[in-house]
Amino acid sequence: MKKLINNPEFVVEEMLEGVVKAHPKYVRKLEGFNVLVRTNSPVQGKVALVSGGGSGHEPSHGGFVGKGMLDGAVAGAVFTSPTPDQVFEAVKAVNGGAGVLLVVKNYTGDIMNFEMAAEMAAMEDIQVASVVVNDDVAVENSTWTTGRRGIAGTVFVHKIAGAAAEAGKSLEEVKAVAEKVIANVRSMGMSLTPCTVPAAGKPSFELAENEMEMGLGIHGEPGTFRDVIKPADEIVEHLVDKILADIDYNGSEVAVMINGLGGTPLMELYIMNRKVSSMLEEKGIKVYKTLVGNYMTSLEMAGGSVSILKLDDELKELLDATADTPAFVQL
Amino acid sequence: MKKLINNPEFVVEEMLEGVVKAHPKYVRKLEGFNVLVRTNSPVQGKVALVSGGGSGHEPSHGGFVGKGMLDGAVAGAVFTSPTPDQVFEAVKAVNGGAGVLLVVKNYTGDIMNFEMAAEMAAMEDIQVASVVVNDDVAVENSTWTTGRRGIAGTVFVHKIAGAAAEAGKSLEEVKAVAEKVIANVRSMGMSLTPCTVPAAGKPSFELAENEMEMGLGIHGEPGTFRDVIKPADEIVEHLVDKILADIDYNGSEVAVMINGLGGTPLMELYIMNRKVSSMLEEKGIKVYKTLVGNYMTSLEMAGGSVSILKLDDELKELLDATADTPAFVQL
Repeated sequence: MKKLINNPEFVVEEMLEGVVKAHPKYVRKLEGFNVLVRTNSPVQGKVALVSGGGSGHEPSHGGFVGKGMLDGAVAGAVFTSPTPDQVFEAVKAVNGGAGVLLVVKNYTGDIMNFEMAAEMAAMEDIQVASVVVNDDVAVENSTWTTGRRGIAGTVFVHKIAGAAAEAGKSLEEVKAVAEKVIANVRSMGMSLTPCTVPAAGKPSFELAENEMEMGLGIHGEPGTFRDVIKPADEIVEHLVDKILADIDYNGSEVAVMINGLGGTPLMELYIMNRKVSSMLEEKGIKVYKTLVGNYMTSLEMAGGSVSILKLDDELKELLDATADTPAFVQL
Repeated sequence: MKKLINNPEFVVEEMLEGVVKAHPKYVRKLEGFNVLVRTNSPVQGKVALVSGGGSGHEPSHGGFVGKGMLDGAVAGAVFTSPTPDQVFEAVKAVNGGAGVLLVVKNYTGDIMNFEMAAEMAAMEDIQVASVVVNDDVAVENSTWTTGRRGIAGTVFVHKIAGAAAEAGKSLEEVKAVAEKVIANVRSMGMSLTPCTVPAAGKPSFELAENEMEMGLGIHGEPGTFRDVIKPADEIVEHLVDKILADIDYNGSEVAVMINGLGGTPLMELYIMNRKVSSMLEEKGIKVYKTLVGNYMTSLEMAGGSVSILKLDDELKELLDATADTPAFVQL
């Protein structure tokens, strides 16, 4: 295992210490919990957003805590759901009286634990609502999911619902716009290599030197099929075709995210974007905005995902709003 | 070779197409040249900054073209100096009448080709000045360099000199502040894995499963020594000790960059930062700002570098100035 770490048991704690040391302007850690919240939390009168999940997907989710996006991020062990009490602590710390929206990715453990935290919060009279992101068109049902999995499209939910909350919308309104994003975003990824959970010390599966897996999950859950490595354009064609088959993007404007899984050079993500943008152009789908980079990773996995979000005027305005977080800044 | 590419011969061209498709707001490509300039180039009356070098270091340098940083970036073949005519085209396209500063990393080929371009520009009465970045304390002289190599510290030069140019400083003043950054920034990196130049198809060297190389260059040039992989804290200790031994940081305020080489999870960079910040704290050196991420990469190499820049009031103000580029945005 080739990693720049110390004790594999403490990677999450040590990472969070490093995050707080790097970004004290943006985030602080809740004493005794692997939870990051905005330095100035709670923001009085603003709907607060809390997200999170297993660690190993950095910059998700702590990197998106800041103005215009999240208020709190809960970090489970690597690829492991955070516990309900962690989520509950985050909710309490960020609640500014206008309620808290939980942004959950569709994995059985996350759903259960965020739901339990919501119940704990309700008992303390904190208004909580939840949305579940399920953007991955690769598989229906999987190792850790019923229905589609939640992957990189989640970052669009953080950005857009976060902007709505910052603009003073109510919990009901912020939830509605988050659900609009979820209804209109689809993603699919693929991988060239597995990754190694530090505490495990070896990859959870293997891919041959000439092999790739299409639709692989962000925790290494099986995808749709394995194949010999194809040229980037053929890979992208498959991903984009699957996405476009899932909802009707005809004639619409879209936001595109080309997401790296952690071990992918930016060069390759841009080569993917070249093909994505030319495919969309051919189909008369207009690209309004493109994000390229590591947003929702799987440790050092090599590979990438494509997300396409269908926009309307409301979503465009919120997508364009200012954001200021460690991993996403927009003027 | 596991890469998301098409024909290995065209990776740079295809990447640049993908960049322009993703970021039309920021950059355009010069017809017939692998050169990116600001969409609105030339900016009349402003000193322009041009940087570049071999490709494979993304987001360097094209990702830093935009307001507050570079005006143009020249992309050579992977790990290969751009040609003088490419650099000359960039200079002509960005020159807004106030002169052009070339920011060159200290590699023999880069120095020669940027110098030749400067001579070509002088013949057309374009005012050109150059600075050479040599922040790498790992080795004196190396495969492709006389003296220290230029690595991730270069990004601080782009940021700070770019802010000075944006503020309306003269070419002489912008050059002086760039030189101040160069005099005050030191870096050192290490690697866990080699990387593969697409056209070569295999790594240029090998590291055993339990082996790392300290001081490895960003093109895979030899470092100072190989060793069995150590815990992150011990690795960081070595890097920071070497940096602090090179210039006197005592009692000063600094900016820190923890730079990933392309295949390193963000988790590991933050674990590095934890140790860097605690070492600096112990020594009474105050961290003013920290950047963590992939700034100057080596394709998919796993590993990282630490850069430490000694600040004064002028550098702090310029470091804090607004920037808006594809890979670096600051409010």
